[in-house]
Amino acid sequence: MRISQKVKKILDNYESDNPGTKSKLASILMHGKLGGTGRMVILPVDQGFEHGPARSFAPNPPAYDPHYHFQLAIDAGLNAYAAPLGMIEAGADSFAGAIPTILKLNSSNSLARPKDQAVYGSVKDALRLGCAAVGFTIYPGSDDCFGMMEEIRELAEEAKASGLAVVIWSYPRGGDLTKEAETAIDICAYAAHMAALLGAHIIKVKPPTAALGLDAAKKVYEAQKIDISTPAKRIAHVVQSCFNGRRIVVFSGGEAKGDEGIVAEAKAIHEGGGNGSIIGRNSFQRPRDKALELLGALIEIYQGKA
Amino acid sequence: MRISQKVKKILDNYESDNPGTKSKLASILMHGKLGGTGRMVILPVDQGFEHGPARSFAPNPPAYDPHYHFQLAIDAGLNAYAAPLGMIEAGADSFAGAIPTILKLNSSNSLARPKDQAVYGSVKDALRLGCAAVGFTIYPGSDDCFGMMEEIRELAEEAKASGLAVVIWSYPRGGDLTKEAETAIDICAYAAHMAALLGAHIIKVKPPTAALGLDAAKKVYEAQKIDISTPAKRIAHVVQSCFNGRRIVVFSGGEAKGDEGIVAEAKAIHEGGGNGSIIGRNSFQRPRDKALELLGALIEIYQGKA
Amino acid sequence: MRISQKVKKILDNYESDNPGTKSKLASILMHGKLGGTGRMVILPVDQGFEHGPARSFAPNPPAYDPHYHFQLAIDAGLNAYAAPLGMIEAGADSFAGAIPTILKLNSSNSLARPKDQAVYGSVKDALRLGCAAVGFTIYPGSDDCFGMMEEIRELAEEAKASGLAVVIWSYPRGGDLTKEAETAIDICAYAAHMAALLGAHIIKVKPPTAALGLDAAKKVYEAQKIDISTPAKRIAHVVQSCFNGRRIVVFSGGEAKGDEGIVAEAKAIHEGGGNGSIIGRNSFQRPRDKALELLGALIEIYQGKA
Amino acid sequence: MRISQKVKKILDNYESDNPGTKSKLASILMHGKLGGTGRMVILPVDQGFEHGPARSFAPNPPAYDPHYHFQLAIDAGLNAYAAPLGMIEAGADSFAGAIPTILKLNSSNSLARPKDQAVYGSVKDALRLGCAAVGFTIYPGSDDCFGMMEEIRELAEEAKASGLAVVIWSYPRGGDLTKEAETAIDICAYAAHMAALLGAHIIKVKPPTAALGLDAAKKVYEAQKIDISTPAKRIAHVVQSCFNGRRIVVFSGGEAKGDEGIVAEAKAIHEGGGNGSIIGRNSFQRPRDKALELLGALIEIYQGKA
Amino acid sequence: MRISQKVKKILDNYESDNPGTKSKLASILMHGKLGGTGRMVILPVDQGFEHGPARSFAPNPPAYDPHYHFQLAIDAGLNAYAAPLGMIEAGADSFAGAIPTILKLNSSNSLARPKDQAVYGSVKDALRLGCAAVGFTIYPGSDDCFGMMEEIRELAEEAKASGLAVVIWSYPRGGDLTKEAETAIDICAYAAHMAALLGAHIIKVKPPTAALGLDAAKKVYEAQKIDISTPAKRIAHVVQSCFNGRRIVVFSGGEAKGDEGIVAEAKAIHEGGGNGSIIGRNSFQRPRDKALELLGALIEIYQGKA
Repeated sequence: MRISQKVKKILDNYESDNPGTKSKLASILMHGKLGGTGRMVILPVDQGFEHGPARSFAPNPPAYDPHYHFQLAIDAGLNAYAAPLGMIEAGADSFAGAIPTILKLNSSNSLARPKDQAVYGSVKDALRLGCAAVGFTIYPGSDDCFGMMEEIRELAEEAKASGLAVVIWSYPRGGDLTKEAETAIDICAYAAHMAALLGAHIIKVKPPTAALGLDAAKKVYEAQKIDISTPAKRIAHVVQSCFNGRRIVVFSGGEAKGDEGIVAEAKAIHEGGGNGSIIGRNSFQRPRDKALELLGALIEIYQGKA
Repeated sequence: MRISQKVKKILDNYESDNPGTKSKLASILMHGKLGGTGRMVILPVDQGFEHGPARSFAPNPPAYDPHYHFQLAIDAGLNAYAAPLGMIEAGADSFAGAIPTILKLNSSNSLARPKDQAVYGSVKDALRLGCAAVGFTIYPGSDDCFGMMEEIRELAEEAKASGLAVVIWSYPRGGDLTKEAETAIDICAYAAHMAALLGAHIIKVKPPTAALGLDAAKKVYEAQKIDISTPAKRIAHVVQSCFNGRRIVVFSGGEAKGDEGIVAEAKAIHEGGGNGSIIGRNSFQRPRDKALELLGALIEIYQGKA
Repeated sequence: MRISQKVKKILDNYESDNPGTKSKLASILMHGKLGGTGRMVILPVDQGFEHGPARSFAPNPPAYDPHYHFQLAIDAGLNAYAAPLGMIEAGADSFAGAIPTILKLNSSNSLARPKDQAVYGSVKDALRLGCAAVGFTIYPGSDDCFGMMEEIRELAEEAKASGLAVVIWSYPRGGDLTKEAETAIDICAYAAHMAALLGAHIIKVKPPTAALGLDAAKKVYEAQKIDISTPAKRIAHVVQSCFNGRRIVVFSGGEAKGDEGIVAEAKAIHEGGGNGSIIGRNSFQRPRDKALELLGALIEIYQGKA
Repeated sequence: MRISQKVKKILDNYESDNPGTKSKLASILMHGKLGGTGRMVILPVDQGFEHGPARSFAPNPPAYDPHYHFQLAIDAGLNAYAAPLGMIEAGADSFAGAIPTILKLNSSNSLARPKDQAVYGSVKDALRLGCAAVGFTIYPGSDDCFGMMEEIRELAEEAKASGLAVVIWSYPRGGDLTKEAETAIDICAYAAHMAALLGAHIIKVKPPTAALGLDAAKKVYEAQKIDISTPAKRIAHVVQSCFNGRRIVVFSGGEAKGDEGIVAEAKAIHEGGGNGSIIGRNSFQRPRDKALELLGALIEIYQGKA
Repeated sequence: MRISQKVKKILDNYESDNPGTKSKLASILMHGKLGGTGRMVILPVDQGFEHGPARSFAPNPPAYDPHYHFQLAIDAGLNAYAAPLGMIEAGADSFAGAIPTILKLNSSNSLARPKDQAVYGSVKDALRLGCAAVGFTIYPGSDDCFGMMEEIRELAEEAKASGLAVVIWSYPRGGDLTKEAETAIDICAYAAHMAALLGAHIIKVKPPTAALGLDAAKKVYEAQKIDISTPAKRIAHVVQSCFNGRRIVVFSGGEAKGDEGIVAEAKAIHEGGGNGSIIGRNSFQRPRDKALELLGALIEIYQGKA
């Protein structure tokens, strides 16, 4: 595989990683229509675990089949496909080598009360399934956050030693956090920074709002006149919070919404210097042709064509 | 062992499994009177743990003897026999090779208050006892559900690496779930889907009712007009929720009831595309000849003869 | 060692055990005056842990010395001697080979509030001390019961792999259980059954009363007309609950009482098909000659001479 | 090293221990001015952890230096020196081989609220530091007592296998125990007995008062007319509770007090058959010459000269 | 590397450490402008984890880049640079060998409620990243303090066996401690002493105030007339509490403040015999030239030139 200069420069930021992990990061960065640009679009399908099968797949029934998602990610020319153990197992052989996969190692569910997640995948699973990376969610702010960080620490150490990349979903939740605070720009930037400090190669956060969640932070944002007035400026602040751009950061799409909203969001991510989108429900819950159309539009944005 | 085309096709769905595990799945699918049809009837005897010996066996005293159940499963031509450690140990040698066994690894009991189970069997136990699979119960919704999922994760990883199959009993219970919600169709399909995501080869759930348990799900079932009006349609929805039929799903019989009810249930399972029944109290609590008669009737249904 | 036909038949019930474990069971069953009969009397001395030294030994001060108990068990011709780590360590060399020993691995104490026990012995301890078996107490009904079952699971697996036998003391306690329910026949039979399911070779329970503890069980006992009217019938029901007699079950003597009560209890155990008595305070708290006399009387009962 | 007959007899009581552990016990019993008498005086310095440095060392500032304590124990001709990790590390090389050391493996502190201790030393630490024994505190009665017993179980097993001796500090505390009950004779004897049952080679308790802490015990002490009227009789009862003298038991000095009180206590210990004193604050909190004087007086008592 | 006599003498205090650990300590003590003096200034950058990126870096935006801190520490001629996993990983290769690094293994964060920290780095991480030491925070007084001490015990044992040095941040917090008590001289000296007892090579505490936190300690400070009237006398008391100067102790700067305050503090540390400063926010939150100026001033103080 020929590595583009852009990607080479990104890889250089991962100074401490072994060649195995770097080649896995490269495989994601060089794959699909955005291969070599340093930008990426990833398809994540863990909503079945989080919300149940009907809420996830009934709007587009072919999506009940795990093969559907592999094929969608491949056909759309995405960089990678992320999913829980069972979903990857169900297509690992049919699509072996066809697209980099990210094994999600933990998930919550809508029936459970504690703000925690079950760890149900392992680094050994990722290796036997030929995955490029493992994915893990932390809930900064939750009363279980220290435990979750200790879980990913152990898994990340094993993953790095095994030549895999590590993706951290950093979703503030629980504890004293209000619903609004969960996506406030200071909290979001903080969550992204913590994922970087925990050693993540790729960081996934939600697009931040202009709200400020912590009083102590509010004072600093005002005193230092940090510009968080537009979506792109907020994205740029998150990127800065990820070691001044030395770590890849992608943004999730959140709840299903109209095409316009998604496209506007991607433009802001692109303009703010974010590395891309990780977009689930907004792609697999619409008919396949519509999904390919939307994903194509996002790719054009990250290609700088739109 | 000659593998039927039907079974071959089912095995193909287990893309990521090693030949050891596949051959154990095949041994269950090819055994007994339903061997080769892709359907199965399993005898589970863990009620002694869950309800005590008298409530389980007094209605049919020969059932106090562990050998009774091995023999019943063999004589009825079932696919497999599932039981806790002690029950399997007590007949493992006498019936070695005579019928595939599933070692249940955890159980609750009627004296305990927490909605949890004790893990009292291991993968090493299953291997030394010549079992084809391990069985594990999770309680989605319970406050211990994350812990239970993490237990089965570890056991399932070891089982798969050891060439065994994994059966998950997925029984919603505890937390905010009402008694009615435990068997509501949306909750049941969700529970089955989570078992699939956790990497189960065979999923066991209770037959779902037409109730809807989660408000968020209710909206989707109505908006998407998911047909859950008949037992067979509900079974089909559960099958769809198990990776669109890529995973084997069987249904338990629940409390002892009349023959008619059981037969009707099996017909719905058969019609809805479920893989079969796992039927305990309704078989071993009646006299042996009656049990053989009823099990014979079920087998005929799954053979498509009734 | 020549194994009697009676003992051979008992050993045959332990189908899954390795020759090491079977020879340890045989050593207990063939030892002492009841050797070869399939019946047994065991001396357990863990009361110092449970109630303190003065309450245990002050009535018969020579019993403060650990050697006293080894010698008493040997001179009385008992099958085995069971005690905690320190007690066995203090005589293991002087009495090496003189009588089979059972290392008790956990104990509670009268100062502690939680209904749990501390695990303070290991399988490795049992091996280095030349023990024939390990002993472990579970409290079915206690809020810690799942944890206790998981502890014995791990220890039992290691013990069996190491060629040792496993004795489970199954004492219902805690949770919603009333004092009366702890020895109710349904609860006692249930506790014995759970020990069998957990893989115990020898099960120890308290002699059951005619009370019924669980409402759900009460209905079954009445409907099925289970005869629990005499001590012997209740013993027989417990034996039946231990895999229809495929597992050895012995009964403890409970609080110190008069000779008549103890003898009557042993007769009921003998008549009901129980395998014997495990008798502590009623033997070591009386003067040595009186203890030998009483133990001799019990042995005669189990020999069928009384 | 020539072992005295007295010490040989004591070592014979440790029937199950390997030669490594026995030689470590011998090294303590044969060291210093009491070497060979079967009696011992030990210097313990863990008060800095329990009460802080100023409360421990300000009365005699040279004691801030870890070397001070090694030298004091050596110059006073004591049998051993016991201290936490850092204290031993700070002098392990300078005083290598000069006096047997006991590595304290856990400690509490005055800032913490839970009635527990932190385990901060390991058997491997003891081995690399050339220690003769490890020391561990349990709090019988505390809600954490089962956990503490399970910790020492694991550490003691490793220590014994590594040829080290095990010293248990058994201090009743927490739960339902009143301050008075903590040193009541029945509770103290019970605590000592539990340490013996846990496999301790040397047991350390506080000198008991004539109080009785448990109602159930009170009845027995009265019925059996156990004589606890004098300090020496109470010591003798504790010794009896340690396997009738088969285990070494030493008594701590408690809070700093006048010389007379300490001397009287030692006389009672000597008369009652206790093995000696473990005396911290009363030695290192006074000027060195006064400390040597007092320790000399104690040694004379145990030599039978006073 | 030629080791100065001063440093040789300090190293001699670490009697029990292997040559690997000693050479790592030497590398820190011999590095930078204070190399060989026995004094040190360390740059710690874990505030991003504790307070978030904006509160930490917005006042001086170049500090968002991990390379900035490595370079600042090198250019200022400091002894070492301490930071969390991600920060070290991001510059480990660019600055390999350029300055000794200390991998911080645990951190808290401002979103979490429990007074605990997440352990997110390992000894293996420190080794693969070429670090000289590992750093760990304990919260004496917190309800989790025993657990934190047990974590560092395990990590410190592994670190020492791997030839690394161990730095403990000992910050009283939680439990019954008031805000004022957290920096009271008795509590601070106690916290430092506990770190020494836990086996730390380098101890980090906050500069103590003249307050007294524990009533029991107050009495002793008054009775023994311990002089805590000036900052330098308080520093000297802390040094004394660290094995009478046998352990290296450094003091943090705390919240950002004016140059005068920082300089005065350093003078007191120097005068009181403390080994130096660990100064984060007061260096990296001001412009680089101002930071170099301030750090230069501190170094001159520790060189005895100011």
